[in-house]
Order: sequence, then structure tokens, then C-alpha cells
Amino acid sequence: MNYCSNCGHTISLLVPEGDDRERYCCDNCGSIHYFNPRIIVGCLPIWEDKILLCKRGIEPRLGFWTLPAGFMELGETTEQGAIRETWEESRAEVDIERLHGIYNIPHIDQVYFIYLAKMRSPNFEVTPESSKIELLGIEDIPWDNLAFRVMSEALQHYIEDKPAAFTEVHHAVIGPRK
Amino acid sequence: MNYCSNCGHTISLLVPEGDDRERYCCDNCGSIHYFNPRIIVGCLPIWEDKILLCKRGIEPRLGFWTLPAGFMELGETTEQGAIRETWEESRAEVDIERLHGIYNIPHIDQVYFIYLAKMRSPNFEVTPESSKIELLGIEDIPWDNLAFRVMSEALQHYIEDKPAAFTEVHHAVIGPRK
Repeated sequence: MNYCSNCGHTISLLVPEGDDRERYCCDNCGSIHYFNPRIIVGCLPIWEDKILLCKRGIEPRLGFWTLPAGFMELGETTEQGAIRETWEESRAEVDIERLHGIYNIPHIDQVYFIYLAKMRSPNFEVTPESSKIELLGIEDIPWDNLAFRVMSEALQHYIEDKPAAFTEVHHAVIGPRK
Repeated sequence: MNYCSNCGHTISLLVPEGDDRERYCCDNCGSIHYFNPRIIVGCLPIWEDKILLCKRGIEPRLGFWTLPAGFMELGETTEQGAIRETWEESRAEVDIERLHGIYNIPHIDQVYFIYLAKMRSPNFEVTPESSKIELLGIEDIPWDNLAFRVMSEALQHYIEDKPAAFTEVHHAVIGPRK
């Protein structure tokens, strides 16, 4: 941030009165601009005993596999966002079963909501965001070609849940890559 | 938003190429500015059979009662944020037991994470944000003077959980006030 989005004046990094950390403060109109972590919503879509995975058709991580997920938009709930992102990336229609996991990635200021979801049909389509889409059994998950570690965590948790019919929400904090 | 925070130029509300909704786009440098829902993190702090509630010492809802909660900051996890907010608002030190509820409030673009937490001691202090703090039994919850409906939901869920020792995460969508 270089300029005040309210009045267009220059800004300074200052600790506002009564606050305890630096914020972008306008030198002219006094606006304080806060930045907060962003929410990413997505699904683990299931058809029979298979999981829907998307091969990324866009950067970042072009060509790597992911569960359908993306930034939560204004005016929607986390569930609505997860259904929307699944549709946008794969044209799969899903009904949410339950919240599967919450994944914090504090070094990039992201919080993931991954929902376990049932596909309404085995239908899906390649989209501008996904160059290939497949329904894969657990044994066929491309572990070495997953786009993001959060997806690997979510899939691992799904596999661990299967024998126990586990229903607690998983949590993990994902740190920077070593 | 009136000006580009990157270059200070005027902006326009446009649907960017490949997108499906209006964003603030800079007329000069081409920056696209996204706005997303914000996360509020807080605790339901328990000492023995009592709940810690704070009387708000600041707007909004000055003088009404709330669980300690506030905006998640950059660089922290939801759990860390909930512990921090509890400390900032009440000087109570807590250990998180589990995620109690996720509450979506789409009309104001907020998602709440409320954690069930054990207080390390019955100690707390009035703070700049809380004019009064009390440990209250269920029978003493000031239902008519709670600051936010999300707090009323979270407390109601806690009461419903008690007899069953329920451990699933609660969910609710809170709409505009009628």
C-alpha cells in the first residue's frame, strides 16, 4: 500500500492511538487501513468411493493437482463459497456433508475451509481454471504432484477418517516450506 | 475505495477479463483490488462452571455484554488470535479446548471462529475495551443485553452441549436483523 484508497494522499506506517501494531495511516484524511487474513473455501467432492481432483490450468502451481477451492467472496457464506468454487473449477454440482477441516497458513495469511461434499452426479467438465479433472480412488492420488500442502493434509485426513467414520473437524497449521 | 492504493490514481468498478464480478480496477497501473470477508476470532472462556463475559467499553454496542473476540491479525492462526483477543479484552489467560462454532454473517462479510477455552486461573481485569468483566453461571447470562447475536448463538450452543458432552462444531448463518 502506497496511497490512501479513500483520498489518494500518501500514507505512513504508524501505530494508531490505542492500538499496538503498525497500520497504514493516511497523512491527510486520517483513514486507517487494516489488512487481515483471507479465507479460502473449497470442497473434497466425493462420488461413490472416488475423489474429484482438478489439474490446475492457471498459475500458481499450473499443472499440479488440487481440490477445487478459491477465495471467499463478499456476500456469501463459507458453504456457498465452497460450492461456488467447486462449480467454477470443475462444473461439478455438490451438496455439502460437513466441515472437514480448517487449515491455518499464517505465513501467507490464509485460512482454508475444506468441506466434505457429495457430488450430485459423476459429471464434470474442464474449465478455464482446470486443464483436466478426474475422479480418483485413494490409491491413485498423485501425492507427488499436488499443488498445495493444504490439499495433501486434507486428503490425508480424509483417508484417516475412512475406517473410523470420523466426524470431527480437522485442524492443522501449515508453516513455511523448509 | 476511491483511489488506487498502489499508484494513487482514480479507479473504476469493472469486471476484469476472466472474472465474473465487479472489482476496483486502477485506471492507470492496472491493479485489481479485491475485498474479502474478514475473520473474527474469540473464546468462550470457562472457569469451573462459569463463563467469562465482558461488558463492552467501546463502540459498537458500548455497554452490552460479549464474549471476548476481535479481528484476526496478519501472521497469526485463528487459535492464536482467539487467545490474544481474550487477553486484550479481559486479561484472562486461556488454553483452547476445541473449536466450538463457526458463524457466518454474510450481510456484513464476517466469519466468526469461537473457541471453547479453559481459563488458567479465575483472574481477569478491566481493560480499555471492557468496562466490566464477570464470571457468570448459565442462569445469569444477560440474554437481553448481549452485544451481538453471534454471541447469543454461541452461548445457546454451549448450553445445548452441556448435557450431551457434545463435541461437534456448531454452524450458523446469521442474517440481517428483521
